[in-house]
Amino acid sequence: MQSERAPTPASAGTVLQLIRTGAATTRTEVGRATGLSRSAVSLRLDQLTSRGLVVERSFAPSTGGRRPSRLELNPDGGVVLIASLGATRARVAVCDLTGTVVLESRADLVVGDGPEVVVPALLDRFDELLEKCGRDPGEVLGLGVSVPGTVEFAAGRIVRPPIMPAWDEVVLAPLVRARFPVPVLVDNDVNVMALGEQYAVHRGQVEDLLFVKASTGIGAGIIAGGRLQRGALGAAGDIGHIRVHDGAGVPCHCGLEGCLEALAGGPALIAQLQAAGLSVSHLLDVVEQAQDGQAEAVRVVREAGRRMGEVLAGAVNLLNPAVMVLGGDLARAEEYLLPGIREVVYQRSNALATRQLQIVASALGGRASVLGSAVMVLDEVLSPSSVDAMGWPSRHPER
Amino acid sequence: MQSERAPTPASAGTVLQLIRTGAATTRTEVGRATGLSRSAVSLRLDQLTSRGLVVERSFAPSTGGRRPSRLELNPDGGVVLIASLGATRARVAVCDLTGTVVLESRADLVVGDGPEVVVPALLDRFDELLEKCGRDPGEVLGLGVSVPGTVEFAAGRIVRPPIMPAWDEVVLAPLVRARFPVPVLVDNDVNVMALGEQYAVHRGQVEDLLFVKASTGIGAGIIAGGRLQRGALGAAGDIGHIRVHDGAGVPCHCGLEGCLEALAGGPALIAQLQAAGLSVSHLLDVVEQAQDGQAEAVRVVREAGRRMGEVLAGAVNLLNPAVMVLGGDLARAEEYLLPGIREVVYQRSNALATRQLQIVASALGGRASVLGSAVMVLDEVLSPSSVDAMGWPSRHPER
Repeated sequence: MQSERAPTPASAGTVLQLIRTGAATTRTEVGRATGLSRSAVSLRLDQLTSRGLVVERSFAPSTGGRRPSRLELNPDGGVVLIASLGATRARVAVCDLTGTVVLESRADLVVGDGPEVVVPALLDRFDELLEKCGRDPGEVLGLGVSVPGTVEFAAGRIVRPPIMPAWDEVVLAPLVRARFPVPVLVDNDVNVMALGEQYAVHRGQVEDLLFVKASTGIGAGIIAGGRLQRGALGAAGDIGHIRVHDGAGVPCHCGLEGCLEALAGGPALIAQLQAAGLSVSHLLDVVEQAQDGQAEAVRVVREAGRRMGEVLAGAVNLLNPAVMVLGGDLARAEEYLLPGIREVVYQRSNALATRQLQIVASALGGRASVLGSAVMVLDEVLSPSSVDAMGWPSRHPER
Repeated sequence: MQSERAPTPASAGTVLQLIRTGAATTRTEVGRATGLSRSAVSLRLDQLTSRGLVVERSFAPSTGGRRPSRLELNPDGGVVLIASLGATRARVAVCDLTGTVVLESRADLVVGDGPEVVVPALLDRFDELLEKCGRDPGEVLGLGVSVPGTVEFAAGRIVRPPIMPAWDEVVLAPLVRARFPVPVLVDNDVNVMALGEQYAVHRGQVEDLLFVKASTGIGAGIIAGGRLQRGALGAAGDIGHIRVHDGAGVPCHCGLEGCLEALAGGPALIAQLQAAGLSVSHLLDVVEQAQDGQAEAVRVVREAGRRMGEVLAGAVNLLNPAVMVLGGDLARAEEYLLPGIREVVYQRSNALATRQLQIVASALGGRASVLGSAVMVLDEVLSPSSVDAMGWPSRHPER
């Protein structure tokens, strides 16, 4: 027979969740949403304010009665460290508890140098940033890293990343924890870009969004039913190796032929323009030439858009997103890329699926991945169970 | 300034949810999960048992102390009516509150006759079934209908269904409510088949499942992150009109060319075998010939599998499901269809996405859609808010 244990009413972590999401902004609303008594609400709020996670502000002068006050997440109750790794560049940032960047810098980290070089360098950058903004390493609540490759998310394991082979099977958390003993989340860059775009631009409005990154590689991040969908092992969104119609005989670095990336990825566009006699060596040269109106560059970018449109028409039929967002370096040539995509998607996709479909360039640009990683890490470290596991400090932090 | 209102502790509907999902099976567990006092738990259970939704059973003889008892959803606390419409046949069923079929029958309803003929006939069938199993129309809590066409789910509106044009823009609920004034849910048949398969075979195990129906048309139902994903307007899963590699010049009934359905849908397979001189007039003839080992039928089914595999390889790259389930009439020839699908999917999809991918025939066959519709309707009518809106009858129902 089971023993009678005390019931577990709403915890401090649950109360923080209500405050953070805006579902409760006053003590009365917390009580109403949780069923907690007024004194139980006070106890939870004491825990949260002593931990520095919540601030309570008067929002009107006292008129003699109870002074009304507003509960808010304290942006300065801690920080999260974010790194967005690209092939040869990285963005590193310190973000506050609302996901706002406190301080950010670029770093010339070459992922090809492997984790034993890149990870210590990255941690040094985090230390520098923390020092510059006057935050103590003890204030760090979590750490998020996005990489240009597939990640088995639940295990935090990078899996066969084509442009960073030395990272295959690498799990970052243990390499980081000696310096920062906090939760470490690693995800594919396109997934966090999708999270960032949805959070900043479409939060509360759009439940189904497809984020497409067109750069050296081509990939997608899927928001369906309001949540990022990583699939069973974290491999979802790999649209770069779907075969395109006219791809027969075109070899791809993945070992197959006719993949979208082999015809419309950065190296393919560079090769196509070089074959036409143009002097280009980087995808951004292609973008620049197109923006300058160079006819062959315009043609190549528009054709890349059509080939992407072929694959994306299938994705639209499959997922029926409300919004498709284009990001990545090639999206800087949006005036030529988007028409090619739109042409094929609107021609080939299901009429109902395209009835209200918006196809737009990213509003965040390069900021999407840092913001998205911050949102991902904050959702984890400020979740009810994480907050309840933090304990209740004996004194208020000095800051 | 806002007034102090009483807080809202866990309702009877929330308690039913705990019992129905197995999260709480005793009064003690209900108390623990909700934070309700013992007397508050009793009050909720009185509501639920008086409404006939919960039964409490002793599960051991009293040993002198408190008699332990187990809380269970009462399967007979109400019924839901389910119709699964095909082109010329329908299944109609009465299901209990666990989704188990109480009584089922087939009906020769031709959807081409339009809603003004089919809907009244369907309602007559429901009345007959209810009478046969001795249930009163007043016991009906909800009604679910699946149709072979796209449904704008939130609005309950059927949209441009190719094989049932008279149903375009039809909303079923108002046509049904005069006879059954209950919630009416309408969905695409493949969506509810995905729900049924996941519920019966993979519940609690698999969060990412792709159900593919291969029949006259070809469509998919997507479970991602544990939930059915219908997309922004309910059009998700429309894989039948994705273009295949060798489809150039093959017209599709949708107005495009080269669609998967135009090459691998039922009518295409029939035409291919007729062109080879075989006497076939229905998809099931094709299946039968293949099952009999007729060489041309085997070849045609296997080739259909390869063409489906081409589209499904893209879906696997995009969604990374753990399980792909094949259903529909053509899946009866699974021994020839599945190898063609597997061949192309395992060749073309991302290595991580196929590492643990299972590709299997439906375990439920024709029962998937009825079960899935029942699960969909029960999730709605037994949701906390629906149950709380039911009120509290003054006496126990006679049955």
